[in-house]
Amino acid sequence: MTERTLIKDLAAASDGPISVSGWVETVRDQKKVQFVVLRDESGAVQLVHPRNFNEDKTPADDPIADIISGLAQGTFLTATGELKHDERVKLGGVEIKLDALTIAAEAIPETPIAEDSSGDKRMDWRFLDLRVPKNALVFKIQTTFLHALRTYWVEHDFIEIHTPKLMASASESKAELFEVDYFEGKAYLAQSPQFFKQMAQPAGFGKIFEVGPAFRADPSFTSRHATEFTSVDTEFSWIDSHEDVMKLHEELLVAGFQAVKDKHGDEIKALWDVEITVPTVPFPRVPLAEAKRIVAERGYEVPRADDDMDPEGERQIAAWAQDTYGHEFVFLTDYASSIRPFYHMRHEGDSSVTNSYDLIFNGVEISTGAQREHRIDVLIEQAKEKGLDPEELDFYLDFFRYGVPPHGGFGMGLSRVLMLMLHLPNIREATYLFRGPTRLLP
Amino acid sequence: MTERTLIKDLAAASDGPISVSGWVETVRDQKKVQFVVLRDESGAVQLVHPRNFNEDKTPADDPIADIISGLAQGTFLTATGELKHDERVKLGGVEIKLDALTIAAEAIPETPIAEDSSGDKRMDWRFLDLRVPKNALVFKIQTTFLHALRTYWVEHDFIEIHTPKLMASASESKAELFEVDYFEGKAYLAQSPQFFKQMAQPAGFGKIFEVGPAFRADPSFTSRHATEFTSVDTEFSWIDSHEDVMKLHEELLVAGFQAVKDKHGDEIKALWDVEITVPTVPFPRVPLAEAKRIVAERGYEVPRADDDMDPEGERQIAAWAQDTYGHEFVFLTDYASSIRPFYHMRHEGDSSVTNSYDLIFNGVEISTGAQREHRIDVLIEQAKEKGLDPEELDFYLDFFRYGVPPHGGFGMGLSRVLMLMLHLPNIREATYLFRGPTRLLP
Repeated sequence: MTERTLIKDLAAASDGPISVSGWVETVRDQKKVQFVVLRDESGAVQLVHPRNFNEDKTPADDPIADIISGLAQGTFLTATGELKHDERVKLGGVEIKLDALTIAAEAIPETPIAEDSSGDKRMDWRFLDLRVPKNALVFKIQTTFLHALRTYWVEHDFIEIHTPKLMASASESKAELFEVDYFEGKAYLAQSPQFFKQMAQPAGFGKIFEVGPAFRADPSFTSRHATEFTSVDTEFSWIDSHEDVMKLHEELLVAGFQAVKDKHGDEIKALWDVEITVPTVPFPRVPLAEAKRIVAERGYEVPRADDDMDPEGERQIAAWAQDTYGHEFVFLTDYASSIRPFYHMRHEGDSSVTNSYDLIFNGVEISTGAQREHRIDVLIEQAKEKGLDPEELDFYLDFFRYGVPPHGGFGMGLSRVLMLMLHLPNIREATYLFRGPTRLLP
Repeated sequence: MTERTLIKDLAAASDGPISVSGWVETVRDQKKVQFVVLRDESGAVQLVHPRNFNEDKTPADDPIADIISGLAQGTFLTATGELKHDERVKLGGVEIKLDALTIAAEAIPETPIAEDSSGDKRMDWRFLDLRVPKNALVFKIQTTFLHALRTYWVEHDFIEIHTPKLMASASESKAELFEVDYFEGKAYLAQSPQFFKQMAQPAGFGKIFEVGPAFRADPSFTSRHATEFTSVDTEFSWIDSHEDVMKLHEELLVAGFQAVKDKHGDEIKALWDVEITVPTVPFPRVPLAEAKRIVAERGYEVPRADDDMDPEGERQIAAWAQDTYGHEFVFLTDYASSIRPFYHMRHEGDSSVTNSYDLIFNGVEISTGAQREHRIDVLIEQAKEKGLDPEELDFYLDFFRYGVPPHGGFGMGLSRVLMLMLHLPNIREATYLFRGPTRLLP
């Protein structure tokens, strides 16, 4: 492999021959000297080329100058030359005086997007949009965040599973199901790994995690929905209630935020003016009924006929948690059974309320967790009550017929966490390639 | 959460009160004393209960004995009692004298599968099949293996991406494509993350990885194919040839095998009689044309009209690599252009051969890698030559029009690696829930 130095390592390198590879960000083609700002995945550096002149001061033969004059923004190339530290150079205090330029692939000179392009246009050209360091940094942060979560899981003996995304039936609402032609029959795309991550409990796996895609045929066009998203899931046995799930949830988020703060805190502050706060534990917990009273006292009546919160209510309760506890997170607990899936366990002695929670981060729901109902007779009753046909669920109900431990877990939307962590305006900014009702390309 | 001790930790625990939770593996219901073997995710322990007798030696009131007599295999319960170390106890040198049993969920007494059930039957009841420690261990090993790969990637500044599984067109052969009803139109399930992981290169990400599902509408019923599988992918910029890809591939596998050997080597030896060998680098490399001559010399003529290997040829070349180098891995390189996708780069000066390889492990192909063609004009020509319509590929071809670095990478089937590492007879054994042409349940 070519001896390539990453641009971030130039400051620590010695003056002398060096080779860097990247793409052209800007060209300043002046009469006496030419400048190219070259960017790679780690940073940007100034390449400099003093033009060649004859003794009579007419332009001399100068192949490098000719190449530079023809460079389009975005062209990928390898530059070799002499590294020179010079504190007057604003960009990193170094520059490279060119000896040679080798072009890997020239760019079409007209770039189809600019900084002020619409979100939709930028998504059309996502691969160019991601060249903006701030946009790419989102995914470096995501990598750090996820690796911290996985390291926590692995160190605590959780088993990683990969549940199938092709299913014979719905796992959540049938309204949001994608249908697939599957050989002679039909299959459906998994809306969540719910049934199969629960399967690991009667299988005796104890504690599991999965990070994988989930699919919702949701026709809505909000800033926080996608038809395909990365779901962060965990499920574990022998819990007493959803309180145990919330405790694990807190520990995972602390691990993730600590890693992000350590590795990217300064950059995040510089680029987004956002201070990454490692949340203190325990996070505030508020039963949903109380949360509705609290937001009502703050002057907001949730305009819903059912027992659920609405997005403005979530913002209000987040503001309350911030005012009261100085906390960016708040668990809303004990949701009404009427608005929870049949597999959520209900309170002992009050079946109108579930052992469940939503986690609100900076005003938006990022996760739903619960203790699951593991008693087969109760589970069947709850399915029937929701209008589901137990026969269609038979493969799932079987998981509970041959012994099963009490268990629970949560699912969390990865892009939502990143969006809210970095105060991004839209989930598309935290998604590598967004998928929506009218978006399948690129 | 209940103070629960994992069974593997009992040997190191002090004699005295203790609580364990798990499922009933066996019950020996004798006249004077009862034994239950309880298993959890970490091991098995013997619970013991001496029956109560009256002074006249008639059976006394004995609620624990009544519970034990009624226990079905698979019932999940919590047992509390007195831990006692006793080296005469074969199972771990400890037993628990019971004070109480709390049943979480009773099992139906008739277990639908036994050790000698057919593979298909065992898959019908996969959640019970996975209670067998050896079957579950496959996924603990997989967790360790993947975490080692991810740690390598993260420590080497690779960015994790999650490419969409819903696409507007095929990325590989159209024959193996699953079609999805997508709102008013159609979408297709990603057969690989190929196009989108390549997109990260013009996006300037430099080095990326992804572990996620891939889908092939492949109607074959072999021991190594699945319609949904977990694909381990990486792609990186500024390579000189596929040799750079092979070097990375080697380093990743060394990291993975070292971690598996360190953590599970003894168990693997005990349960499968398999010695985990950390492969030495470099792995043997053989150009495909030479490989065909070698297997012919060994007396096997590959019965194919095209330039490809067949499964028996792969076994033969693996046997040769084992005989010659004592190595379980062998790279077959420089595949003919005729049997490689249009996006593989071809040799400079000989367009009949590609900068590509397959990796053979213990006789079976686990991975394909290549340098990609990044020159747009050459890429379009190669697509046309393969009978593809450049217009349909336009969103992909755009990735190459605005500048792109030379790059390459590989995709590797996770379950295949595990199958071959543990000498399992079938890929289903290394898949949490197998999907095949006639298998969508559970």
